[in-house]
Amino acid sequence: MRPIREPRPHPREKLKANLMEWFHWLLREAEIYDIRYPVKGAFVWMPYGMKIRRNVEALIRQLHDSTGHQEVLFPVFIPYEFFSKESQHIRGFESEVFWVSKGGEAGERLILRPTSETAIMPMFKLWIKDHTDLPLAVYQIVSVFRAETKMTNPMIRVREISMFKEAHTAHADREDAERQVRMAVEIYKKIFDEMCIPYLISRRTEWDKFAGAVYTIAFDTILPDGRTLQIGTVHYLGTNFSKVFEVTYLKPDGAHELVHTTSYGISERSIAAMLIIHGDDAGTTIPPKLAPIQVVIVPIVYGDERKAVMDTAQSVADKLSAIGLRVHIDAREDKTPGWKFYYWELKGVPLRIEIGKRDLEQRSVVVTRRDTLEKYSVGLDELEEAVKRIMEQITENLRKTAWERLRSSVVAAGSIEEARRALGEGKVVEVPWSGDNDCGLKISEMLRADALGTPMDKEPDIGGSDMRDLACPEKRANYWLRLSERY
Amino acid sequence: MRPIREPRPHPREKLKANLMEWFHWLLREAEIYDIRYPVKGAFVWMPYGMKIRRNVEALIRQLHDSTGHQEVLFPVFIPYEFFSKESQHIRGFESEVFWVSKGGEAGERLILRPTSETAIMPMFKLWIKDHTDLPLAVYQIVSVFRAETKMTNPMIRVREISMFKEAHTAHADREDAERQVRMAVEIYKKIFDEMCIPYLISRRTEWDKFAGAVYTIAFDTILPDGRTLQIGTVHYLGTNFSKVFEVTYLKPDGAHELVHTTSYGISERSIAAMLIIHGDDAGTTIPPKLAPIQVVIVPIVYGDERKAVMDTAQSVADKLSAIGLRVHIDAREDKTPGWKFYYWELKGVPLRIEIGKRDLEQRSVVVTRRDTLEKYSVGLDELEEAVKRIMEQITENLRKTAWERLRSSVVAAGSIEEARRALGEGKVVEVPWSGDNDCGLKISEMLRADALGTPMDKEPDIGGSDMRDLACPEKRANYWLRLSERY
Repeated sequence: MRPIREPRPHPREKLKANLMEWFHWLLREAEIYDIRYPVKGAFVWMPYGMKIRRNVEALIRQLHDSTGHQEVLFPVFIPYEFFSKESQHIRGFESEVFWVSKGGEAGERLILRPTSETAIMPMFKLWIKDHTDLPLAVYQIVSVFRAETKMTNPMIRVREISMFKEAHTAHADREDAERQVRMAVEIYKKIFDEMCIPYLISRRTEWDKFAGAVYTIAFDTILPDGRTLQIGTVHYLGTNFSKVFEVTYLKPDGAHELVHTTSYGISERSIAAMLIIHGDDAGTTIPPKLAPIQVVIVPIVYGDERKAVMDTAQSVADKLSAIGLRVHIDAREDKTPGWKFYYWELKGVPLRIEIGKRDLEQRSVVVTRRDTLEKYSVGLDELEEAVKRIMEQITENLRKTAWERLRSSVVAAGSIEEARRALGEGKVVEVPWSGDNDCGLKISEMLRADALGTPMDKEPDIGGSDMRDLACPEKRANYWLRLSERY
Repeated sequence: MRPIREPRPHPREKLKANLMEWFHWLLREAEIYDIRYPVKGAFVWMPYGMKIRRNVEALIRQLHDSTGHQEVLFPVFIPYEFFSKESQHIRGFESEVFWVSKGGEAGERLILRPTSETAIMPMFKLWIKDHTDLPLAVYQIVSVFRAETKMTNPMIRVREISMFKEAHTAHADREDAERQVRMAVEIYKKIFDEMCIPYLISRRTEWDKFAGAVYTIAFDTILPDGRTLQIGTVHYLGTNFSKVFEVTYLKPDGAHELVHTTSYGISERSIAAMLIIHGDDAGTTIPPKLAPIQVVIVPIVYGDERKAVMDTAQSVADKLSAIGLRVHIDAREDKTPGWKFYYWELKGVPLRIEIGKRDLEQRSVVVTRRDTLEKYSVGLDELEEAVKRIMEQITENLRKTAWERLRSSVVAAGSIEEARRALGEGKVVEVPWSGDNDCGLKISEMLRADALGTPMDKEPDIGGSDMRDLACPEKRANYWLRLSERY
């Protein structure tokens, strides 16, 4: 393996100039997602996008199946009677709910699930009898519906969230439920790590937690324009739902006790984040583990050497398929190699192999990394090892680069001026906060930024310092409050 | 491998006495599907049912992916404006459609898809430019919605069909579209063959074809009570949809031509059919290929031999997992072996292995087939081969038994009396028919049976005979008309 071109990645100028314009260009040109469907906030997953999505779903399933979650499928219809039982929940969701009707069926008031707590609780009531039935952890990957009042945005703010993985769990007590919350956080970290998406973990403020939760822990990532995108949430629901649905269990001592529940969700937003974070002006790079095509082979053919080159391409493809890689030979005769390079870079195939006549003579091929555009000449006898190694390097580089960008985008600010300046530069800021709701709301208002909550990924307490709440200087700061402009 | 018990399958008396009562018992007791969800016609897939379903989905995906179909995902919302474009289609579906509304969004009239032709055609219009874009074949596995006016029935007649695989294709001409229709029929045969479900293939009558189709070819199976269940349909749609959605392509000669389209669907009804057809009074048998657990190992442990038995159980499980089988050890200590036998027979695990102290001494295990309850003593060194062979035998036996039952349930009848008698005995009948719609409707009425259409799985023409139409004796019979009581 001999380097023949230094790292020289594509620029990110167009991407930074107008991120959403770039994203829509990517979705269209890479044939991932069609945004022209004639209903507001509803879009079409095209075949290539669907393949990416299925790999992400497989990852999500694997990480849930292997940690004691059981897959289920609940109906999309929820009776309004059930949906409205938990008062905070209904208050939070009522304005965003779609109603379903059918001529002549008076009396049946149904909604389309915006989330499934109120569909699942009546069944948990039937399924949970005694302590041996706990903990109970189920999940489903389904469409949920939000009649968005804000502007919709392809894959990011949609009215049909079509890849909503929601997990719902029930536990004997708070301690066990909070253990589950921590497990869910670990599962989500693994999912995002595999997608090479960096994240901030914050405990949402009281005024921004999930409607019906005791508390919410959220994952946000930072997009190249500095705005944050919520990509996952984990809720401890206490007994808020079990109380109104009367979900109890029999303890060994004969007493009946309410279960404690949690729920946690992740959606196609994670895919949007992945495509954007690893994007550049030529397209994107899909992390090897999730790429529908991991290696594309482009035969470079002139005249009568065609057969020899194609035979080698096929044997290279066979070799790499044999070690479990997803390989595609682009054998189109009406496209030039240059056109094909552009095409597959756009679609984010992590590794390209060119095979031409000269390579045949030297028993080697040219391998190009999508992320850095580094090129190597690789001998045919060392190919499998080299490809595996380069794939790992791509994954590491995507992850490292993304984490560096995220880390450099978060700053602590001790004063209003400092915080405003940082926000103006597109940063996420962390400012001293007493923990008081009114003061927090005031900070958010003063800075014209959204509160993400208190950091869970660094020491949340400010500790022994004598910092004062940014908005209420009469109060001692006990926490950091993280703020940003949000999607 | 030494037989130690002859075939002596469980009886099917309860199953036959009241099929639906038995089915609901199975769904509940085998923890497949919970029918207690508080919305009419909406049900819950439980973890074990979900695992069966995921195996069936994988089979469906594999057979579509390998035959040029690309998976996509379209929104569940269809604008009424599009839904109502094709006049036959809207006439057929209008009474069964769910409307979606959201306070304050006047003007946007949305329905929940009952099927996706009218969602997909506007996008086909954008995707198809010229002849090189054809044929185009896409599919999705989604929920579709029918506001059933008939009585709903778990997994069989539901308001949310939650495993609807619908394929949609576009072609340059009728010839190519009809080639696709034949391919779809072959794909469906393979799916049902793998599920060991026997089928009748009929061309539906004019009055019963899909709303908007030129013609419909349908798969029906016969349930043990003699009633038929439609389990798959394939439609040639001609230019009915392309005309109203203006989906054309540019021919090499510069002319613009309407595309010809097809669509074909299969649903969770296939799973209901599979569970029922292989059912008996103790539960069901799931065909090995689709069983979530293919081999269950029940250690027979008394006192201090526990460790030796469990170690062997584990090594047997490892051996069988290594050849790709899905194996589960039922190590529960609070259940007796007899209780476990009952439990896993109910759930349809195709093969059971018992391991006790005596077996250890003889270096053998006892293997029991779920379908026939035949038992064998199998030496540990021949186990993998024996298990594989028995699994194949189970698949063959399930298929053969089911096909024999189906074949013996279809009779040709030349007279009304004969036909009535056969229908009274719970048979499907085939009677001579001129092909005239009015006569066909009259036959159906006279026999008080539903017309399935003309057979496609035997010579549809009656040929040179001088048979007369059953209802219109003045007309010569050109076809058979197949009738039954339908679910």
